[in-house]
Amino acid sequence: MKKIFFTVGPTKVYPTFLTRLKLILEKDIFSISHRSEYFHQIFENTCFSLRKLLEIPEDYPIFFLSSATEAMEKLIENLIYQKSYHLINGAFSSLFFKIAERKGLIPEKYEVPFGESFDFDQIIIPKDAEAICLTQCETSSGVIIPVEKITLLRRRHPDKLILVDIVSSVPYVNLDFKNVDGVFFSVQKGFGLPSGLGVLIISPLAYEKHLWLKKKKKISSYLDFELFFKYYQKKEAPTTPNVFLIYFLGLVAKDMVKKGIRKIREEIEKKSAHLYQLSGIVKKNRLMPFVKEKKHQSKTVIVFESAFAQELKKFLEEKSIVISSGYKEMKDKHIRIANYPAHTLGEIKFLAKHIREFFD
Amino acid sequence: MKKIFFTVGPTKVYPTFLTRLKLILEKDIFSISHRSEYFHQIFENTCFSLRKLLEIPEDYPIFFLSSATEAMEKLIENLIYQKSYHLINGAFSSLFFKIAERKGLIPEKYEVPFGESFDFDQIIIPKDAEAICLTQCETSSGVIIPVEKITLLRRRHPDKLILVDIVSSVPYVNLDFKNVDGVFFSVQKGFGLPSGLGVLIISPLAYEKHLWLKKKKKISSYLDFELFFKYYQKKEAPTTPNVFLIYFLGLVAKDMVKKGIRKIREEIEKKSAHLYQLSGIVKKNRLMPFVKEKKHQSKTVIVFESAFAQELKKFLEEKSIVISSGYKEMKDKHIRIANYPAHTLGEIKFLAKHIREFFD
Repeated sequence: MKKIFFTVGPTKVYPTFLTRLKLILEKDIFSISHRSEYFHQIFENTCFSLRKLLEIPEDYPIFFLSSATEAMEKLIENLIYQKSYHLINGAFSSLFFKIAERKGLIPEKYEVPFGESFDFDQIIIPKDAEAICLTQCETSSGVIIPVEKITLLRRRHPDKLILVDIVSSVPYVNLDFKNVDGVFFSVQKGFGLPSGLGVLIISPLAYEKHLWLKKKKKISSYLDFELFFKYYQKKEAPTTPNVFLIYFLGLVAKDMVKKGIRKIREEIEKKSAHLYQLSGIVKKNRLMPFVKEKKHQSKTVIVFESAFAQELKKFLEEKSIVISSGYKEMKDKHIRIANYPAHTLGEIKFLAKHIREFFD
Repeated sequence: MKKIFFTVGPTKVYPTFLTRLKLILEKDIFSISHRSEYFHQIFENTCFSLRKLLEIPEDYPIFFLSSATEAMEKLIENLIYQKSYHLINGAFSSLFFKIAERKGLIPEKYEVPFGESFDFDQIIIPKDAEAICLTQCETSSGVIIPVEKITLLRRRHPDKLILVDIVSSVPYVNLDFKNVDGVFFSVQKGFGLPSGLGVLIISPLAYEKHLWLKKKKKISSYLDFELFFKYYQKKEAPTTPNVFLIYFLGLVAKDMVKKGIRKIREEIEKKSAHLYQLSGIVKKNRLMPFVKEKKHQSKTVIVFESAFAQELKKFLEEKSIVISSGYKEMKDKHIRIANYPAHTLGEIKFLAKHIREFFD
C-alpha cells in the first residue's frame, strides 16, 4: 500500500508534482544552463507565480537559497550591525537567536515556555535593536504568532526591520508583506516539493539597510545580498542554483494560484478542525493539543501530546500512515501532523479515523 | 529532435539518471524525513559508492552542501586563520582568492595569464601560508594542473593544507586523496545530475585544524565543520539537505563503479582525442585549442578559440547540439565543450562531424 506522509516536512508531495514530473522527463530542464535565456524565463515565471500567490510586492526581491537555516544566517549577516531582538518559543526561533550570537552580534530575546505564545503587551524591545526576529509558525511545537501581532509590532516599532520565518505556515499564512522586511521558507513543507531549496524575500528597506551596512562593516560572505540582488536583476542566482526545484516551485505556485489561495486556506482550516476535534472525541486526556490557547494553535502543524505518542505513531505506520514524532526531547510525548495543501480532506479523515480507532 | 548538451554544466544527464528517475517516481524518496532511518541508509550508500569510485579514504568525512562556491566559503572560513595561498589562472581560482579576501584573511597568490598553467619551480609559498588553494580544472579556460604537481606540492610543503577544486574534472581526475585536505565539486558536471548539490570532502588533518581554529578565533557561521561532522557521524546533514540529489548521486556513483572508473577514464581520453584533433583537420588556424601546452589541456572541458565561435555555436544549435560559449569576456572568442562520462563516443563523433562541416 502506498504510504501517506503527514510528516511536517519533507512531506507528501503536491498532487501536481508527480504528474508534472512525468511530463517533463523528456524535456531539457535538467541540462539547461543557469545563465541561459531558458533559465531566465523559469526564474521570471517562478517569481511571477510566487508574487501572485503570496501577494509579494513587485519591489521585494526574491532570492533562492538552499535552506531556511541559510536564510537565517544571511538575514543576520546582511542586515544587522549589532543587535537583533528575538521572540523565542521553540527550537527554530531559538536557532535564529543562536545564529545571531555566532555572527558576533549582541542579540536580545523575550523567551516564553515551549508551546506558549507571547504577551505582546509585555514585550519591551530595546531602542537599539535593529530588527525583530520571529517564527510565525514553530514547527517544533505547533504554536503560531497571529499575523495581527506582526501588524502590531510594525505599528509600534516602525523603525525596526521585521524578519519572519514562515517555513511551515506558507502558503497558508496570510502575511501582509508591507509589514515585514525579511521572509523565508523552504519548499518541502507547504509547497509539497522535494527538499533542497530555500526562498528569501526582502523589502526594499531591508536592501537599503544592507547597502548602508556594507559601508559600515565588513560582510565576510562573498555571497551577500548585493550580489544576490545583482543576479536577481538578471533573473539569475550567483551560484548554480537548484534549477529543477526553482522550476517546480513555479509550477506548483501556478497550480495553487489557479486553484485559488482563498480556497486553499479554507480547506486547511476545515481539515485542521477535523484534527483538533479529535481530542474531544478520544477518551479523556489521552490526546490533547499541545498548544492550549486556540488562537495560537497552528492550522498547518498540529501537535498533540499523548502518553501513547510512540505507540500511536507505530500503529499508524502499520496502516501506511506516516506522521512526525515530537521534536527532539518531545519524541515520546508528542505527535506532529502536517496539514498542508497537498493533504486532501479524504486523507485527513482517513488519518483521523485511524487515530480514533487506536484510542477506542 | 532531442537536443544533446555538451555544455560545461549543467549538462547532459548521466544515461541512467532518467531511467532510474522513472523507476522511483512511485517511491517515497521525495517525502521521507531527513532524520529517518531510510535517509541514513541513503546517506551511507552514497558515501560508500563515492568512496569506492574516487578512492576516498574511510577517515575523510563527506559533507553535502549546495554549491562549489559554498564549499570555497566553508573551506576558507573553517580552516584558515590568516593566510591562504592561491594558484590563479582563471575565473574560479580567482573567485577562491576573492572569497579569502572577503573573509578578512590576508591571502597571497601566484597568478599566471588566463589559459596558462604554472611553473611549479617558480612558486615561492610564504612560510606562514596555511593552505594552498588550487583549481585542478579551470572550467573557464580548460586548463588543468596535472595531479603529479599536487603530489609535488604535498612533498615540498607537508605543513600546509592543500585545497582542491575538482568541479569539472571529477570523476575523471585520478586524485590521491592522501595528498589533499579539502576537495570539492558539484554534481551537475561530471556526474551528469541536475544542479543543486555541492560535495566537500576533508582530511582528518583538516578537521583537526578546524577544531584548533575554533578555539583560536570566532567562526561566525553556525553551520561550521564541527556541526557538519557531528551530523555526518549520524549520517545526516545539519539542515534539510537535497535528499533527492544525494540519493541520485549515490545511484550514479554506483553505476559508475559498476562500469569501472578505469573504463570511464579511458573513454574520456579517447573522446577528448577526437575533439582536440579537430584543430588539425579544419582549415588552418580557424579552430585552435585555447590551452597551448598539451599536458595542461583538460580532457573534460575542451576550450577552442575561434574567430567564428558564435557562428559555430549557432550552427550547432540548429542541429540540436548545445555547447557552451567562452567564459564571460571570451564569449565571442571561445567555445567550451564538455566531455563527461554522460557523453558517448557516438555523440562526440556526431559533434565533431558537424564542427568539421561548419568549417568546410
